[in-house]
Amino acid sequence: MNDIITQLMSHRSIRKFTNDPITKEQLHSIIAAGQMASSSSNVQAFSVIAATDPELKKKLAVLAGNQAYVEQCSVFLVWCADLYRLQEVTSDHLKEANQSSHVDTTENFIVATVDAALAAQNAAVAAESMGLGIVYIGGVRNRIAELSELLGLPELVYPVFGMCVGVPDQEPGLRPRLPVEAVLHENGYNKEQTVEQVKVYDGTMKRYLEERTNGAKDTPWSQVMADRLAEPIRLHMREFLDEKGFMKR
Amino acid sequence: MNDIITQLMSHRSIRKFTNDPITKEQLHSIIAAGQMASSSSNVQAFSVIAATDPELKKKLAVLAGNQAYVEQCSVFLVWCADLYRLQEVTSDHLKEANQSSHVDTTENFIVATVDAALAAQNAAVAAESMGLGIVYIGGVRNRIAELSELLGLPELVYPVFGMCVGVPDQEPGLRPRLPVEAVLHENGYNKEQTVEQVKVYDGTMKRYLEERTNGAKDTPWSQVMADRLAEPIRLHMREFLDEKGFMKR
Repeated sequence: MNDIITQLMSHRSIRKFTNDPITKEQLHSIIAAGQMASSSSNVQAFSVIAATDPELKKKLAVLAGNQAYVEQCSVFLVWCADLYRLQEVTSDHLKEANQSSHVDTTENFIVATVDAALAAQNAAVAAESMGLGIVYIGGVRNRIAELSELLGLPELVYPVFGMCVGVPDQEPGLRPRLPVEAVLHENGYNKEQTVEQVKVYDGTMKRYLEERTNGAKDTPWSQVMADRLAEPIRLHMREFLDEKGFMKR
Repeated sequence: MNDIITQLMSHRSIRKFTNDPITKEQLHSIIAAGQMASSSSNVQAFSVIAATDPELKKKLAVLAGNQAYVEQCSVFLVWCADLYRLQEVTSDHLKEANQSSHVDTTENFIVATVDAALAAQNAAVAAESMGLGIVYIGGVRNRIAELSELLGLPELVYPVFGMCVGVPDQEPGLRPRLPVEAVLHENGYNKEQTVEQVKVYDGTMKRYLEERTNGAKDTPWSQVMADRLAEPIRLHMREFLDEKGFMKR
């Protein structure tokens, strides 16, 4: 196990930060490292909004489900899938050639979403290598229209997730993941194996919760997931994306 | 700049591999590192199919647009967004509680796509830390229905992208990215800046291509992107995802 794998295997989400700021240089390095992730045909279809202004962070924290760490972290990054830049910089070329743009396809929605995620994960690894901590915030999709307006996001841009970045002020333990055998399939999808391995993980997570909560909680993972799926969340996503110009076909 | 950032900044896609195999232990470490990436509410909604069988890799190479390196690499990983496992392991719980599942929302489609991408990028970083090389293959979406059938992917699973992994047999140069200022916006989206910075990048990529091709190619990036957007690719995605049970609302 080398140092890089050791770091990757030590990842925990950080939800409590000191007041220490991260520097402009650190932020620049984190984003530049994010950009070096692969991008589909080099389209680089993402943008990241760095919220450092205290008032803005406060508003974002409310919109993202009243999560205090969004306000408390040094920088709150909003990672966006961005087809707007591509649309803008190609429009003259396309007009000259009398061609029309296929920017609004489901394919390009996936490309932009994946580009944003790959860049964000590289950025997360870079931040952690500097001793910083991060947590992804899906809550930016809670009140996505308001949040997008607050950040001035144009058409063909949507916030995929947020990310708190700052100096950690806690040391949470590692959360166990599904057994490798649950997610890794050899030469073809193995339905039985993936379901069977969840039984193992149910036991692991039950014990993990019991230990962490001194026995107060012991819900198996599959039950936690059932409770989550029973609740309809963010049903506005489809209409919102449609309004923003995504996935027209 | 620490060793981890140095590695991230040195990423290049590798498209030529030696015949050296990667070991089972290496593959296990790569996937385990992938799993340690963040996952939305710990749903871990992804699977990865490791194609090691030469005949299977040959077929996948054809389906992914006749890309020889898909066949030549040691292991071809197909990273899938996977809501099937969640559906299966929660169905009894939901039945007992007389609840229905909201697994098929646009929200969960995004969650699963992002989970797959974050895990894949961690895996890419892990593989590169072992001296291996990788390249992402969007071509798995070219003939996605055939490829999914070949791999036995059930409903609510789709291949987001592939990834060749192997021992590099080439040393390509770094490909310049957009200026940081093109993708990083401070406290709000900056339309003018992101478009303006592309002009800088157009010059950078023109010079980069000229040098690489001894003057044979010098198309600015925005023109390359316009040519790409003019071509309708993978227009089957929406219908395919619908058939697989995704994004029903």
